[in-house]
Amino acid sequence: MQTVQVNLADRPYPIHIGPTLLGDADALRPFVHGTVVTVVTNATLAPMFLPRVRAAVTTLGKQLVEVVLPDGEAYKTADSLDAIYTAMLDAKCDRKTTILAVGGGVIGDVAGFAAATYQRGIPFVQLPTTLLAQVDSSVGGKTAINHPLGKNMIGAFYQPLAVLSDTAALKSLPPREYASGLAEIIKHALIFDAPHLAELERDVEALNARDDAVLARVIAHSCRIKADVVKRDERETLGIRALLNLGHTFGHAIETEMGYGVWLHGEAVATGCVLAAELSAQLGHLQADDVARVKRLFTAVNLPVALP
Amino acid sequence: MQTVQVNLADRPYPIHIGPTLLGDADALRPFVHGTVVTVVTNATLAPMFLPRVRAAVTTLGKQLVEVVLPDGEAYKTADSLDAIYTAMLDAKCDRKTTILAVGGGVIGDVAGFAAATYQRGIPFVQLPTTLLAQVDSSVGGKTAINHPLGKNMIGAFYQPLAVLSDTAALKSLPPREYASGLAEIIKHALIFDAPHLAELERDVEALNARDDAVLARVIAHSCRIKADVVKRDERETLGIRALLNLGHTFGHAIETEMGYGVWLHGEAVATGCVLAAELSAQLGHLQADDVARVKRLFTAVNLPVALP
Repeated sequence: MQTVQVNLADRPYPIHIGPTLLGDADALRPFVHGTVVTVVTNATLAPMFLPRVRAAVTTLGKQLVEVVLPDGEAYKTADSLDAIYTAMLDAKCDRKTTILAVGGGVIGDVAGFAAATYQRGIPFVQLPTTLLAQVDSSVGGKTAINHPLGKNMIGAFYQPLAVLSDTAALKSLPPREYASGLAEIIKHALIFDAPHLAELERDVEALNARDDAVLARVIAHSCRIKADVVKRDERETLGIRALLNLGHTFGHAIETEMGYGVWLHGEAVATGCVLAAELSAQLGHLQADDVARVKRLFTAVNLPVALP
Repeated sequence: MQTVQVNLADRPYPIHIGPTLLGDADALRPFVHGTVVTVVTNATLAPMFLPRVRAAVTTLGKQLVEVVLPDGEAYKTADSLDAIYTAMLDAKCDRKTTILAVGGGVIGDVAGFAAATYQRGIPFVQLPTTLLAQVDSSVGGKTAINHPLGKNMIGAFYQPLAVLSDTAALKSLPPREYASGLAEIIKHALIFDAPHLAELERDVEALNARDDAVLARVIAHSCRIKADVVKRDERETLGIRALLNLGHTFGHAIETEMGYGVWLHGEAVATGCVLAAELSAQLGHLQADDVARVKRLFTAVNLPVALP
């Protein structure tokens, strides 16, 4: 198991990364204090992961409240948030109740915002089940829901007590979603960490095979990079966190032009990074060799590097 | 003008107390940074106070978004919250937009929670127009809305940039609401500050006449007492803030028995304090003289001291 310590002004918290963390009662134990645990997940993930989480919570002798939301970004709404509040109030959950978010970025965002606001803030543990959530949305404390007038417009900065990232859960990810997570990892390396980029190039085969040990190391490294950035600009006030937006100018344009959801976020970011590299080369900054290297790595992990 | 500095872990903020603060552009200036200001108030208060606030905001050269909610605790809801979000998103308010809460506890709670959650947190200034809000809900950073399944169940701890308490605004308060605020002031003194209790007894006439200078001094003193308690237990985790609940065991029972809204909160608290004092005397703790003194002070400021 790998562990990354995230040191924020407010309170430090650990990210544990390993192959069987979803059902691991001992890993969960230090972060569950009250008598009730609320698990939030979605209808697609519930059959895959809920039995294991349920078993772990039962082992700890805690009462379980289960909230299963519909699957998809379309449900990152005030209605889903209220479904969590209502289930918890019905079950008389108090301020010691811990919320476990089992899923990708949408579940983490909604469940995290519920934890930030239920009775003015309760304990919260992330169990991200997508690679993107494990390296991106579970580090940084951003929680949110969408509003009919804008994405992520309502939310809070709220840090979890811990993040438990199960690499074995990634085995069941659809190939495009898995590759989309790798795009984020490569992006972190491109911006901040040339040696890590070389390691990723070396480990392409193991990454494509979803090797647990290599994944744990790579995820931990990527989380360290992001945690370091977040630490320097926790509330996104200094512009440092904006460095993480490499590839996003083109990426957002791609997503908007093609319609959201046609390309996955990581696919748009991969092509966005390549377009940014090509622009940089045209402006005389990057060498042509470097652009080719960026394209080669994204291609090797099955990501698009040009507009369709 | 009196000023109380509230020193919390997160960030200190000032409470200014004076006779003409509602329309005072200079008092507002240090706390308004963006190009847009959103004022949240209710339909009863808008005709009385909005013109002055509007003039101050206009003097500062800021664009104004006005959200006028219906009056009353029944509107401390997710719908009112969404009315604020929607007005702000329609007006393209960004993270620099400051929310001004002009009203009593309900407006402060809803507007404060909107500020805590709009784009993950924006600047927020309280302009409390009731005595209760000036000494109680504007100190401590509690924001919330009610849920159909429980009062104040959804919220956040979120501190304002400043509180500007206009004592002249209190002139227009209905007598019972004004007395209800005095109940809170007397309660703070009863729990923590015997010399202040003696001052209140001395100043009863000036208080009943709503004298600006005496009010500013008394409000400042009461805010200092509460700020000191909040500082020691900001997130209400240590039980210290629970000391502020003197009279609330009986008070809540009275409110529940009589139906919410029949007696005002401060009226229930006043009688609750007297009942608690009588119980204490029966148990051999308080002297009969002290009980009489408590009753005399509440009675002198037109508060009930016995069940109907």
